[in-house]
Amino acid sequence: MGEFDLIRRFFTRPTPRAVLGVGDDCALLQSAPGMQTAISTDMLVAGRHFFADTDPQALGHKALAVNLSDLAACGARPLAFTLALALPEANEAWLAPFAQGLLALADAQGCELIGGDTTRGPLTICITVLGEVPAQGRTALATSSALLRSGAQAGDDIYVSGTLGDAALALRALQGTLLLPPEALAAARARLERPEPRVALGLALRGVASACADVSDGLLGDLGHILERSGLGAEVDLDRVLPLLAARAHFAEGVAQFDQRYGIATAQQCVLAGGDDYELVFCAAPAQRAAVAQASAHSATPVTRIGQMQAAPGLRLVDGQGRSVAPQFASFDHFSAPKGQPA
Amino acid sequence: MGEFDLIRRFFTRPTPRAVLGVGDDCALLQSAPGMQTAISTDMLVAGRHFFADTDPQALGHKALAVNLSDLAACGARPLAFTLALALPEANEAWLAPFAQGLLALADAQGCELIGGDTTRGPLTICITVLGEVPAQGRTALATSSALLRSGAQAGDDIYVSGTLGDAALALRALQGTLLLPPEALAAARARLERPEPRVALGLALRGVASACADVSDGLLGDLGHILERSGLGAEVDLDRVLPLLAARAHFAEGVAQFDQRYGIATAQQCVLAGGDDYELVFCAAPAQRAAVAQASAHSATPVTRIGQMQAAPGLRLVDGQGRSVAPQFASFDHFSAPKGQPA
Repeated sequence: MGEFDLIRRFFTRPTPRAVLGVGDDCALLQSAPGMQTAISTDMLVAGRHFFADTDPQALGHKALAVNLSDLAACGARPLAFTLALALPEANEAWLAPFAQGLLALADAQGCELIGGDTTRGPLTICITVLGEVPAQGRTALATSSALLRSGAQAGDDIYVSGTLGDAALALRALQGTLLLPPEALAAARARLERPEPRVALGLALRGVASACADVSDGLLGDLGHILERSGLGAEVDLDRVLPLLAARAHFAEGVAQFDQRYGIATAQQCVLAGGDDYELVFCAAPAQRAAVAQASAHSATPVTRIGQMQAAPGLRLVDGQGRSVAPQFASFDHFSAPKGQPA
Repeated sequence: MGEFDLIRRFFTRPTPRAVLGVGDDCALLQSAPGMQTAISTDMLVAGRHFFADTDPQALGHKALAVNLSDLAACGARPLAFTLALALPEANEAWLAPFAQGLLALADAQGCELIGGDTTRGPLTICITVLGEVPAQGRTALATSSALLRSGAQAGDDIYVSGTLGDAALALRALQGTLLLPPEALAAARARLERPEPRVALGLALRGVASACADVSDGLLGDLGHILERSGLGAEVDLDRVLPLLAARAHFAEGVAQFDQRYGIATAQQCVLAGGDDYELVFCAAPAQRAAVAQASAHSATPVTRIGQMQAAPGLRLVDGQGRSVAPQFASFDHFSAPKGQPA
């Protein structure tokens, strides 16, 4: 099957919102009046971000999900995306489910595939997503409704959506460094392989959250970006964060059994620095607590208040009694720490 | 050096036209009123699209150039781009010149680097470019000034910009299947490694050309896209196309010496199906000949009239006397034909 047949067969779709979709040198989009375009790009490499034998349908889903998560973090509504794909071979049995997983999420989020590139090469997926956020004026950041990393204020509450650390736990289990009971593995693995981008929550937080980032590299690292861009520090309550590891609830004898079996350090590391969570970490003024609860309810996305932004720089971990806990975990960084995926 | 340090050091630049550049989950752009956004993405894989030991400065230039060439083909003015980069290692001696080559072209074309992603992996470069084209109305293709592949009419002249086939010739020389004199090799190699996107010509052709595509996979294949999207056929004068192989002029005894040494088939194949040209092939009504000449002069880009669009489907090669020449060359296709690059 030739490159162009392949594109036509699996990746050419109607694009009712785009002016022009796949098939020309460029796609064409028209912004609605008063809208800014949010853009993000992510590259997934086999053996680095996913196992080469990952279910292609799940991979198609995840490749778009991690990009939509960036739009979610900005409070942007998904519009369109491009897909660049390097493939070792034009394997229909792989491409069909990959396209299915990808396009099912695209349809669910109203995000149109408008262009792309395919080539032979080591399996690599690069997606660029475009979304829109309202802006009061033209070209000024101050008038944008986008959620940024830079807007937090000292005293703001810190929240995180959903659950944390299960993807990292699943990765360890799949790598064989840790053994999980079947139900716990299945649930954790679903978080690793089929993350659900928090687009609805991001939209609901416009005008409510003061700062937001998506948790892709681990909570501490991504909250760290907010600290850095906002020029602030933070205190995070570990006793509120640890219960967010959902896998612990799958143990018949409860959380204590998990901690006894794997060690509390494992739970801490997965939750604080695990990566691949694709949740949102965000800040909001205490006066916005009711509005945050409403955004959570409106988007059907649980959120947990986990700490407070502070003027003093640095990120401090405390327990439920406010006692300092030594931070033991470095955030994931592609070039300074191993990802933990097969090389 | 960590991923974030690396981004900061080499790829963080002022973005005066973007609302927000590198450093958040998304970049933000604001379209000017009455403008549509043109989007294109290209992925370059080491060993497939370039030799792994290619001069990184030239590679940085080329990675952006091939994307800008798609904007040129649409008559779009470059605005911004994202860069996703998989690297085997964070090698400063490679990254510094790569960024230099990339950003020098970006500056020259007024195209801002607004976001990206870096990861460890087999050397792969994925760029998504955004440009703008005026549109009279909203969301309708009919009102767009974009040059499309689909607009050609029977009877239109066919033109190609610049020269053709030298990049393919250089590739053969670098692979050792053909020996070129030093000056001819240097000139051809410059075309392979530092293509100049025809952005100024694309802009000048708005309202003049009826259809346009960039020549990235070979003249016949890319003109073929115009034929297919326009529902037409074409006649191409081989005697007008062959002289576009610039390398032939580097031979002391002239074109005949080249043809004698390498065979006319080599010249034909490089010119018609060589790939990596990054010229524009476009159509315009005969009434537009003066306007095409003006666009060529205004953009300081030579163009050559090479044939005519016809109602009868298919692409016919003829000689200067209009006699049919059997087409011997298939266009490059990543999955049905070898690219000719090292695997």
